[in-house]
Formats: sequence, structure tokens, C-alpha cells
Amino acid sequence: MTAAEAILCRQSVVRFDPDRPVSDAILVRMLRLAGRAHSPHHLQPWRFLVIRDQGNRDRLRRAAFHHPRLGEAPVAILVLGYHHPDRSHWQVIRDQLSSAVPLSAEDLGRINAEVRRDLAAETDRGIWACRHANAAATTLMIAATDLGLASAQIDRFNGSLIRDIFSIPLDHSLCAVMAIGYAVGEPSTVPCLPLAELCFLEHFGQPWTLGEGDDRA
Amino acid sequence: MTAAEAILCRQSVVRFDPDRPVSDAILVRMLRLAGRAHSPHHLQPWRFLVIRDQGNRDRLRRAAFHHPRLGEAPVAILVLGYHHPDRSHWQVIRDQLSSAVPLSAEDLGRINAEVRRDLAAETDRGIWACRHANAAATTLMIAATDLGLASAQIDRFNGSLIRDIFSIPLDHSLCAVMAIGYAVGEPSTVPCLPLAELCFLEHFGQPWTLGEGDDRA
Repeated sequence: MTAAEAILCRQSVVRFDPDRPVSDAILVRMLRLAGRAHSPHHLQPWRFLVIRDQGNRDRLRRAAFHHPRLGEAPVAILVLGYHHPDRSHWQVIRDQLSSAVPLSAEDLGRINAEVRRDLAAETDRGIWACRHANAAATTLMIAATDLGLASAQIDRFNGSLIRDIFSIPLDHSLCAVMAIGYAVGEPSTVPCLPLAELCFLEHFGQPWTLGEGDDRA
Repeated sequence: MTAAEAILCRQSVVRFDPDRPVSDAILVRMLRLAGRAHSPHHLQPWRFLVIRDQGNRDRLRRAAFHHPRLGEAPVAILVLGYHHPDRSHWQVIRDQLSSAVPLSAEDLGRINAEVRRDLAAETDRGIWACRHANAAATTLMIAATDLGLASAQIDRFNGSLIRDIFSIPLDHSLCAVMAIGYAVGEPSTVPCLPLAELCFLEHFGQPWTLGEGDDRA
């Protein structure tokens, strides 16, 4: 499946087959791809809590206003944004950067200072982490589609109740609740706003004149 | 290119060819795909300001601490989150929903009430819009890669200066600044955190035991 097909197919309205489990290998592959999203300084401030146990899924569903997709799908994933100022994996990440790009001691010192400065400038790191964790959540959904899975993002949930149930500490924002599984039934795609409504050219308010292209992409 | 390849390739560190422009048709296709991201109630609260004029790109670059990628890339895109409570495109979106899924007058009334309730519950709609616009920004980057383009998200910029330059009103959050073009040179990929650092199983803090899978995915 091309990326374009995965993006289009992801956008379908789905129901899940409750009797078709998702293998460990597919879950691992999906999560590795999700972790390839962009983040500032490659800080990767996302974490994934993967829930397959029936009791845990029932508890999650009750905390999400009994959403039907969480009843059907064999896997639920909580996407968390990690924002503890001092206990990040920055040391590990710095070593990874050094292994990929040649960096002098001076470069590393400068990057260190930039990371500290940029994080210090964020007035709410919970929101900062959530914004970037959402990039991982979006990548996860496209990766899932590519792997033959379907995904649904559950937008309405009681965050503090979910935090209690799964003991999520306050240095992790709860950013997204996902249902993952195999689709059943005919998918239906909802049209999107035309580019004339979404885009401006060169300056805010200046109309889009480059056209709409093909409706299917 | 498969979605997995696009996700992996997107993650490369790139430099852009300043002499290779991006065609209107490719831009249109990329933006249509970006608009397929998930949003609550399909509200699509993202807007794209596309900048190609050299003078505008220079002004943007100065407001982004002279980021070198904005100097090279022939296209810059500002991803905005739209959050005006009363002037949304909800009427258009509702008609689109009705065309895709059979909805009774009662269904529509219920959805109307839900949209109002959920938006009213957001304490900061600027952040709400930004979180979801980031899903479109992420989808845009994967779509760009699929179309043979490269993208770089610019994380450091003077938001209020950019707002002034391009007359962005306060009901639009400035969520992401992107450089888009064709890559030159050898791409280098930075490794990501292992799943053992990113994932938990069933409960927060409970170790990941499903393995790491293949390093290339």
C-alpha cells in the first residue's frame, strides 16, 4: 500500500472484528514506525501504553463513555506525552545523534544548551509533549493502515479516570486514545473540506488559486 | 513507496535543492492528503499558508532565526489551527457527513449538540486546534515523502513576528513551520529510542516484553 493509499484508507469510518487478534509482530512493527515521527531535537516525547487484556479494555471503555469501537477492537493504545524536565532520555538520544551525524564536543555542548533553552521556554510542557505525541499518534494510524489494520481515535474520554486506572503519573500527558484491530464491513469515506477553504497563498486571507486536483487524493 | 517506507524516509536528515521547484500539481496533491488527517467530529481545524515568493520566504526565514532549511527549500508552509467558535465550517462539514453516512434529523441534532459541548469543554481552543493541526502537519510530511519530496519541520521561530508578517489573525494558532522541496545529498537517518523505552504493557510502568522487531522498521 502506498503512503497516499494508507492516508486515504485511514480516513475511513470503521468497525472492528472483535474475533481477529493482532499479532505481537504486527504491533511491534506498527509501534516502531510510530516512533519515527518528527520531534524537536529528536526528543521523541511519546510513550505508548498497549492494552489487550479484556478486563483492562473494559475499564478503559467505561472511562471513555462506553465508546463502541473500544468494545470491538482487540487492542487499545494510550498515547502519552512525556515531559519530565530532568528524567528524559536525553543522554540516550544524544548518543544516538552522535552515532548518526558526526558531532564535536562543541556541537554536543551547543545542542545540550539548545535543548535546555527550548524546553525552558515552553510555558506548559504537558501541552508541548501532547502536541508532539500527536505526531506519533498520527504516524501510528498511517502505519497501522499500511499493515492492514484499522484504527479509530477516540476523542471523548475521562482523562483523570484513565490516569487513575492505569496509574499514569503527572509527568505524562494523556494525548490520545486509540482502538486498533481489523476492519469489518464496508468502509465509508467522508469527504474533506476543499483546498479553497483550507489554503491561502503567500499571505493570510489571500485566496488559493492552484486548484483542487483529483477528488480521491 | 509504501507508507512504511515513507515514514522511514521522512525521518531522514535532509538538505534541499534550491534550484528544483515544486509543481502546483504536486503541492495540491500533498495538501489534499494532509487534509485527510483525523480530527474530532471531522472538524478539520487546520489551515495551510503556502509561501513560495522569494521575498516572503526571506521574511519568514528571518523570523525563524535564519534557519538554513528555509533558505534552501522552494516552498514553506505555515500550518495553522483554526479555532474561532462561531465561524467554523461546521455547516459545510455537517453536509459532508450527511452525504457519506445516512443521518436523520435527530442524528444531526445530536451531533450538533455534541460539537458545541465538546468545544465548550476545551479550556484553550488555540491549543486544541494546534494539537489537531499537528496531525495534519504530520500527514503532510508523510504525503510529501510519498510524492518524492522532502520536508523539514522548523521548531524554532518567533511566532508573533510571523503572525505580524503574514497578518495571521488571533483565531488561528501558528502550529508548525515546514520547509518543502527536493532533497540533495546523502540522507542520514537517526536511530530512535527502542520500544523498551517507549512502551508499556497493560499498565503504566509495566515493562514491554513483545520485543524490538527489525531495526529498519
